[in-house]
Amino acid sequence: MSKVTCDMAMSVDGFTAGPNQRADAPFGDGVDGALHRWMFDEPDANAAELAAITDAGAFIMGRNMFDPGRGDWDLDWTGWWGEEPPYHAPVFVLTHHEREPLERKGGTVFHFVTGGITKALARARAAAGDRNVAVAGGAATVNQFLAAGLIDELRLHIAPVVLGRGERLFEGVDRTELVQVGVSHTGLVTHVRYAPARP
Amino acid sequence: MSKVTCDMAMSVDGFTAGPNQRADAPFGDGVDGALHRWMFDEPDANAAELAAITDAGAFIMGRNMFDPGRGDWDLDWTGWWGEEPPYHAPVFVLTHHEREPLERKGGTVFHFVTGGITKALARARAAAGDRNVAVAGGAATVNQFLAAGLIDELRLHIAPVVLGRGERLFEGVDRTELVQVGVSHTGLVTHVRYAPARP
Repeated sequence: MSKVTCDMAMSVDGFTAGPNQRADAPFGDGVDGALHRWMFDEPDANAAELAAITDAGAFIMGRNMFDPGRGDWDLDWTGWWGEEPPYHAPVFVLTHHEREPLERKGGTVFHFVTGGITKALARARAAAGDRNVAVAGGAATVNQFLAAGLIDELRLHIAPVVLGRGERLFEGVDRTELVQVGVSHTGLVTHVRYAPARP
Repeated sequence: MSKVTCDMAMSVDGFTAGPNQRADAPFGDGVDGALHRWMFDEPDANAAELAAITDAGAFIMGRNMFDPGRGDWDLDWTGWWGEEPPYHAPVFVLTHHEREPLERKGGTVFHFVTGGITKALARARAAAGDRNVAVAGGAATVNQFLAAGLIDELRLHIAPVVLGRGERLFEGVDRTELVQVGVSHTGLVTHVRYAPARP
């Protein structure tokens, strides 16, 4: 059966972004590339982990990842990813505000889902077929999925930085036993894959 | 020159103990062995990392690690470690309450220091000579040292569990760039060693 995966770049103190994420600072105040240096400076050494991030048949993301810090929809805003986003699959965006689907080049279609994570997951599973569903972020969305026990494989990419503040992964997630299913590293990151411990 | 080291077992969500640490629950509510299974179930696979924890010429610990949840000294309390603690060196215990040194078998002598972390570190460095000084915990003490930039090598032992609450490492520590100096793992833990990035 297909799995629900989640890749998150995280500081050693558990933050996935700084505070005040917004259009001109998508990773929040003071973060810039701090969590993602391994992606940009070591793409070859991290090729397998990078490829895995977008290897899914459907994606789910929070409204704030699609469009940080905005209220109503600005219909001129089509995401961060330019003409051809890296997903090449349906992307279900959690939101409280209805919007028509947005089709981009290369097979990425953003669908806007108002029914919460359960509804989004059902639609993503149906769209993905035999392939995995990836929960793409941000932290608030991932934390909802973790709290509901809906992530089958959590892939943390731990960057060597203490951020001190920002969006915290695992906020609101209760005690959960995990199984460490894989560890690798380069000079700029430690990759750890976890699965929930199933009785 | 000798280094200031710190080994901490930590959950993936950044806790080093549960809440309410006390004499009958030294790692706090609900934690038991969750952070330390690698120590007890895989001592051979983790032999090098375990040996490194006590390879220092002097140690520093918080009052709460020596004697959790107590107010004034109970002079019958001599620590958790039985007749022969694993330190075999001077241990400087941070406290607000004076107490005579406590000598145990095998070379461990607990000294009680009321002058804060700077005073404790000066005494530990003097006692350690050419050897390293290890900050042994708990989180509140380590966080003071981290915030002051006094840890030269932080060795995290990340256990596959989300605790959800408890004593948080890095609380009160501001943005700090680190260098990842070593990564290893077994089935039950990921070891990551960090040094501060020095300009």
